[in-house]
Amino acid sequence: MRMPNDAFGVGYLQDRIDREFPLARHIDVSVDSAHDGGVVLRAPFAPNSNYKGTAFGGSLFCVAVLTGWAWATRYIEARGLNADAVIQESTIEYLKPVNGEFQAILRAPPPEQIQKFLKMLARSGRGRIRLQVQIHDDPAIAVRFDGVFVAAARP
Amino acid sequence: MRMPNDAFGVGYLQDRIDREFPLARHIDVSVDSAHDGGVVLRAPFAPNSNYKGTAFGGSLFCVAVLTGWAWATRYIEARGLNADAVIQESTIEYLKPVNGEFQAILRAPPPEQIQKFLKMLARSGRGRIRLQVQIHDDPAIAVRFDGVFVAAARP
Repeated sequence: MRMPNDAFGVGYLQDRIDREFPLARHIDVSVDSAHDGGVVLRAPFAPNSNYKGTAFGGSLFCVAVLTGWAWATRYIEARGLNADAVIQESTIEYLKPVNGEFQAILRAPPPEQIQKFLKMLARSGRGRIRLQVQIHDDPAIAVRFDGVFVAAARP
Repeated sequence: MRMPNDAFGVGYLQDRIDREFPLARHIDVSVDSAHDGGVVLRAPFAPNSNYKGTAFGGSLFCVAVLTGWAWATRYIEARGLNADAVIQESTIEYLKPVNGEFQAILRAPPPEQIQKFLKMLARSGRGRIRLQVQIHDDPAIAVRFDGVFVAAARP
């Protein structure tokens, strides 16, 4: 049974990702944790591997961008805001190959950046926020993703 | 019947992508053209859509990065060089939503950049090259991708 405080937790995000992104099912993304302070997603190696026995850079990007989308989406929805988040631009650095199952970790940006984002969204119907995601191949960071997401009020 | 000068053409790249990237089959990427001067890949909308009726940013990235990989790989292989290309870092800008089937277009970089890349690879066993890919939602450019690829000699 899901606890009431999981209303915007792991199950909520997993349902939305599975329902709203057909490709995510093939990547086999699962949500490990989901709260205001951060989101962690996980993906298995096999469907995301390439011929060299390392994770495909495109899969790593997909899981990173879904992690950013997931944090922004649940943050907005948990506050009853009627808006959709989309990626606007991003950079990704592949620091070392990933050789197995991987986790994408997002820690919430500083409170003043979140406040600015919410103010822009309330005032103009459009807020921008920069989110950083790291993919770990313990203990090292294998991938660094930095993305700007835009939340736009639904008409 | 494939013509001899297609030895590193459309069929060659399609085989390699299908065989070497399990996720590419789910994206349903197909190779439209492949030669020294450029590579064009194509993907259908349905498997790459999201809940908003636009293409998923992760799918657009995957097709762009495969286009860069495809150009570098066939350029290397057509010259009998024993090396593998991988993505090292990239930026992507989503300029407008993509609402249907899409094409990713790469035009070869200037000859002096290709010569520098081949020299580095020959001298040190490791060459870097910056490749640009555009995704078109005719007539506008919908996505701009800029990636640095590294070719490393196989041991």
